[in-house]
Amino acid sequence: MTPHQMLLKKLAVKTDSKILLIVLDGLGGIHTVDSPQTALETARTPNLDALAARGALGRLIPAEVGITPGSGPGHLALFGYDPLAPRHEIGRGALEACGINFALNDRMVASRGNFCTLDGEGRITDRRAGRIPSEEGGRICEKLQGVISRIEDVAVHVRPVKEYRFCAIFEGPGLEASIEDTDPQQVGLKTLPARSHAQTSAGKKTERIVQVFLDKASEVLGDEPKANGMVLRGFAKDPGLPSFSELYQLTACAIATYPLYRGVGSLAGMEVIETGQAVADEIKSLESAWGRYDFAFMHVKKTDSNGEDGNLAGKAAVIEEFDGLLPSILELKPDVIAITGDHCTPSVMKSHSFHPIPLLVHGPFCDVDETAAFGETQCLRGSLGTFHSEKLIGLLLANAGKLRKFGA
Amino acid sequence: MTPHQMLLKKLAVKTDSKILLIVLDGLGGIHTVDSPQTALETARTPNLDALAARGALGRLIPAEVGITPGSGPGHLALFGYDPLAPRHEIGRGALEACGINFALNDRMVASRGNFCTLDGEGRITDRRAGRIPSEEGGRICEKLQGVISRIEDVAVHVRPVKEYRFCAIFEGPGLEASIEDTDPQQVGLKTLPARSHAQTSAGKKTERIVQVFLDKASEVLGDEPKANGMVLRGFAKDPGLPSFSELYQLTACAIATYPLYRGVGSLAGMEVIETGQAVADEIKSLESAWGRYDFAFMHVKKTDSNGEDGNLAGKAAVIEEFDGLLPSILELKPDVIAITGDHCTPSVMKSHSFHPIPLLVHGPFCDVDETAAFGETQCLRGSLGTFHSEKLIGLLLANAGKLRKFGA
Repeated sequence: MTPHQMLLKKLAVKTDSKILLIVLDGLGGIHTVDSPQTALETARTPNLDALAARGALGRLIPAEVGITPGSGPGHLALFGYDPLAPRHEIGRGALEACGINFALNDRMVASRGNFCTLDGEGRITDRRAGRIPSEEGGRICEKLQGVISRIEDVAVHVRPVKEYRFCAIFEGPGLEASIEDTDPQQVGLKTLPARSHAQTSAGKKTERIVQVFLDKASEVLGDEPKANGMVLRGFAKDPGLPSFSELYQLTACAIATYPLYRGVGSLAGMEVIETGQAVADEIKSLESAWGRYDFAFMHVKKTDSNGEDGNLAGKAAVIEEFDGLLPSILELKPDVIAITGDHCTPSVMKSHSFHPIPLLVHGPFCDVDETAAFGETQCLRGSLGTFHSEKLIGLLLANAGKLRKFGA
Repeated sequence: MTPHQMLLKKLAVKTDSKILLIVLDGLGGIHTVDSPQTALETARTPNLDALAARGALGRLIPAEVGITPGSGPGHLALFGYDPLAPRHEIGRGALEACGINFALNDRMVASRGNFCTLDGEGRITDRRAGRIPSEEGGRICEKLQGVISRIEDVAVHVRPVKEYRFCAIFEGPGLEASIEDTDPQQVGLKTLPARSHAQTSAGKKTERIVQVFLDKASEVLGDEPKANGMVLRGFAKDPGLPSFSELYQLTACAIATYPLYRGVGSLAGMEVIETGQAVADEIKSLESAWGRYDFAFMHVKKTDSNGEDGNLAGKAAVIEEFDGLLPSILELKPDVIAITGDHCTPSVMKSHSFHPIPLLVHGPFCDVDETAAFGETQCLRGSLGTFHSEKLIGLLLANAGKLRKFGA
């Protein structure tokens, strides 16, 4: 627990007010001479602009000035955890396992697997096994699980995620997450053996168990036409984050379509709500869950995907789609609503970036400023100023009347 | 000493220049849809506006984003101490004792007392003993002191503060501030016995001594018509803050009408100057003390009181009164003057709040910005930006030419 979280924990009180945090992934963009407007600024967003007019704007520094975060740290910071603390470098294995609602315990090491296609000499020819459909992935996971369920005193759990992606979770005494990825990251190369970068007895045991699993899996997959190989990545344990309930007295839920975001929410102690793939589906899930929680996190993925593709118009279209749905969200009457991103994904950079993220907060005491449109330049002028994402949760709790005064 | 204070201590030099810090308690407000102007913005303040025009504006974060501080932490931060450090959570007993110029040493535990009225069964019927006048409070303190001056090897000091309020200070070896308040905070309940939350020998000794004091006091007060009972609160030791002189090479004085603010100043090593109750009285005290100090802190209380009452017009009137007196202050020709608050007290919230505080700094090198009125929205646009109160003292020292360059 960081000193800031200890402070919030000390001051937080349970009240009836409700907070809604909406993360439009990779929301922010930048201005260049050739591309003087961001996706958020080119998008027609009458509903966001109206909310900005009666709310307050600002900007969030996701990790630190100049630091470009991945989605994991970006979200951890929004949830109040120090995104740069070594103990918060959460491996994708743990995120993915939580994202498919697989409950981790401290005897487990989780990894994220990809099925791949190997040639006769064991070299990778397709890193995604021809993007086999999810049904195929599910069938192959069942087949593996049927043959391999235990190695020595370690239980092995094989669970499908989506298409060619799965989780392999190892559960037993004395295991460690020190195993390197077995993915050579390139076609034409052979998959790598299990290697522990820690020469501890737990590291050696885990290395041995994972290698036995890889060897057995190789036999089981031998007759598959496409998915005849696998790589494992992101070996990780549950980081044991203090929960939203423990930290902030919040009963929280997470609504997200991708396992990673469901995973981060789950690790923070949020209940992960079932939902469909469209933003409208997510809003339906939000509506049905809203009565049972006092904090909801809703994640919209496609702003980021379009940014990564360098598709400014596509990103603007996703923002416009969200804007059109915003009135139905506001009908839930959250006491405090925040709309922001986990990092910027400027279309001109086709990647995550280090720039401050646009932030909109609306609540009874948000301090309405003179801004009347939600955009990067307006956010620079907003009354919330520029501060670190890690501090956002405190601001939202304060706006919702959920923090007592500090000191006499 | 925080790392920042160690840095300032290393760089600070004694010079002839003088700094004046004026704290208008709870100065800042917020904008809402229904109340689009703050007290500071509605007040007619030609003198503050003129000073803003030839000075620089900014905003202070009193403790941390989202954190609402009490007056103690709010002032500690303005004086350069980390307001959130656990060792800086100064109990009201120590603040109150310092506020009445009672010099604490490290063998003392101070508590803040209230006389109250008890019924025949010992239940509180009036938590303020009918607000007996200060003369009555003084007489009763003398009566108590006459009977109780020593318990075991502990000297007991009973000192009046104002009306029904007093300080009880226990001085002796092996005492600890771990005693809970004896105030049940509610009429109809009996006062509580002395209880230490630490089961140390010092805790047990202090508990025993305080209980003997309460029992003896109960006998002495038995024949009083109104003040026939007492409660003790905020048991605290001197936190041992490094002084303004040690930290910043400043010979500092404090001018405030309320004990708490005099107390915080005193704990920071400021000389507390006698003064009357009106702002004009405080300015007279400032004028008479000005020649002897190179740093003066002057506190104006009623901005906060009106904010707490939800009285925006009343708060604006206090600001206007101060504005009218500002020219006489400026005649002292401080090299650097800063006008700000210890926290915001928005009238619409009727309480302290977490919002950034308006800040005005005038000095030869303050960097005059384009703002020409002292108000929250203008402060957002000022050249000083938004930063933590804890850093203000360094900015004032720098503006006064009292900080050497760091490094070659």
